Amino acid sequence: MKERDLIAAIQDRTVVAANPSLLYGIGDDCAVTRKDGIDVLLYSIDTLVESVHFDPAFHPPELLGKKAVSVNVSDIAAMGGDPQFLLFSLGLPTGFDEQWVLRLSDGVAEACNQYDCTLIGGDTVASPGGINMSLCVIGEMVADQVLYRHGAREGDIVYVSGPIGRAAAGLELFKHDQGGRDRFADLYQAHLDPHARVDLGKRLAASGIVHAMMDLSDGLATDLAHLCTQSNLGAVVYQDQLPDDPLLTEAAELLRRDSLPWMISGGEDYELLFTVAPRATKKLQEVVAKTGDLLYPVGTMTTEKGVTLIQNDAHQQQRETPIAFCGFDHFSKR
Amino acid sequence: MKERDLIAAIQDRTVVAANPSLLYGIGDDCAVTRKDGIDVLLYSIDTLVESVHFDPAFHPPELLGKKAVSVNVSDIAAMGGDPQFLLFSLGLPTGFDEQWVLRLSDGVAEACNQYDCTLIGGDTVASPGGINMSLCVIGEMVADQVLYRHGAREGDIVYVSGPIGRAAAGLELFKHDQGGRDRFADLYQAHLDPHARVDLGKRLAASGIVHAMMDLSDGLATDLAHLCTQSNLGAVVYQDQLPDDPLLTEAAELLRRDSLPWMISGGEDYELLFTVAPRATKKLQEVVAKTGDLLYPVGTMTTEKGVTLIQNDAHQQQRETPIAFCGFDHFSKR
Repeated sequence: MKERDLIAAIQDRTVVAANPSLLYGIGDDCAVTRKDGIDVLLYSIDTLVESVHFDPAFHPPELLGKKAVSVNVSDIAAMGGDPQFLLFSLGLPTGFDEQWVLRLSDGVAEACNQYDCTLIGGDTVASPGGINMSLCVIGEMVADQVLYRHGAREGDIVYVSGPIGRAAAGLELFKHDQGGRDRFADLYQAHLDPHARVDLGKRLAASGIVHAMMDLSDGLATDLAHLCTQSNLGAVVYQDQLPDDPLLTEAAELLRRDSLPWMISGGEDYELLFTVAPRATKKLQEVVAKTGDLLYPVGTMTTEKGVTLIQNDAHQQQRETPIAFCGFDHFSKR
Repeated sequence: MKERDLIAAIQDRTVVAANPSLLYGIGDDCAVTRKDGIDVLLYSIDTLVESVHFDPAFHPPELLGKKAVSVNVSDIAAMGGDPQFLLFSLGLPTGFDEQWVLRLSDGVAEACNQYDCTLIGGDTVASPGGINMSLCVIGEMVADQVLYRHGAREGDIVYVSGPIGRAAAGLELFKHDQGGRDRFADLYQAHLDPHARVDLGKRLAASGIVHAMMDLSDGLATDLAHLCTQSNLGAVVYQDQLPDDPLLTEAAELLRRDSLPWMISGGEDYELLFTVAPRATKKLQEVVAKTGDLLYPVGTMTTEKGVTLIQNDAHQQQRETPIAFCGFDHFSKR
């Protein structure tokens, strides 16, 4: 059973009771509930498990603490919200290294300060099977600005907010004992210390021109497939529109790999994925004009379902490959 | 390092940034934030780890799912609040039993219905070291009714809301292969399927006579010590005032154990622990008159610090034993 099938089965069995404060439950990056007449609250929970999500052998604890927060806060950014509060539950094996835990806590604190998010609660438990961390983040935003995965329209341009595949490449370099090379510092960084795109998410939500948005956590192929499913549409992605990234190519050459799978299904990019009508392109440029953010139009929303990668071969022939959900899946790939 | 020392160290390192919506952060059963002009929101996170918090060998998955929710909801009850929403993160080893997971989900759903709490989000992850579950519950209540651990006054009577030690006895019976006996069904039940005291908590909060409250999760000795520390007072507990429990005595005889440690430091009772001025006794009786809840006045708040157990020996001589924090501690005892 794949993760998404399991989640669907759990969802089916946990009938959502009517609660007038609930605006959106399971199925997006965050749940959304009414706060007062103007604002809504956003909620997300994430768990990071040793040897699945991180390897303490090369992940410095400060950066791991930061990453745990960033990954969780990224779900708030995905809706266009403002992170407010964080709860942090830490499971530790017997005989854990106290200094390691305190350095991890320093990282959590640093990330909280960075995102202007307050740690309001936590829990420590014994975890004989290895370190695990669960975080629950609470965000806030104006009710009518919330951006969901649904809402994309036919013909919308699909954007990603930055380079993709770097975290996957960085992780791969570590796994092949190619960590510590100065020239790949940006790739290591992408894996060790990703940044949640809170400010951009808020600006995009406030702009009123974005139809659908989410964050890239499981890879473009899987995440765009979710956005398509929930918008009842499909999408095409043009390989030659993907962010050009010589560093990624260089790492791929070193490892004798192809860089494309990293970009398509690597995961952990924590960039934003969103759709905007072509006629709003100028307004979109204005949204990022002062910030220097680079937005990459990688594809188009279509009525034909599925996600299709369009590649030009050496003879300028187009090749179409279905890539929906070809991403990181906890139960089928790792 | 003990759990509470570790938590203190983490707290010290995660400086709480000023957020005008935050009314109470780390240090009680829940964090408390402003919702609107009238109500506040309550937040708590809990993690349950296989072989530490539960043993799938004798814990039916439906009851385990229910328990995970009850344990978390109990933190809301501890403040006098009303559970509203739940987020549920589930870690599963490779090759997990799908039927087991679906039955667990049924239990989660059943508990949500029971507490009128809506599951609004979740996460599934691979967890090679064993099953783990993290839950975050969100509650709501009127701002000026919130009951904290601090606030107890000298001379207050210390109450527990029901029998204590039963969950610890039930667990011990399972561990010694004494499960399945009809006569101990209530003890097994206390361990397998505890009930969060939401209704009582709400009535106590609304009564206006309770000075301090929390739930009993780590055992009377530890939990009362927390309440004392935060109220800047101490307490005495009278052994002969503890709830009389012939079933507990019988289980202790079978296992050739003393039942007192179960009552004092067994943990997982999920009853409420609260303090009320002696002059409010009649009003307290009125609060529970129609519900049949039995409240046990087990001790008194004192200016002398610490928690002291007072026992009468065979010759009616009083013996005083300091018991503060003699409870379940994840890192020092198990």
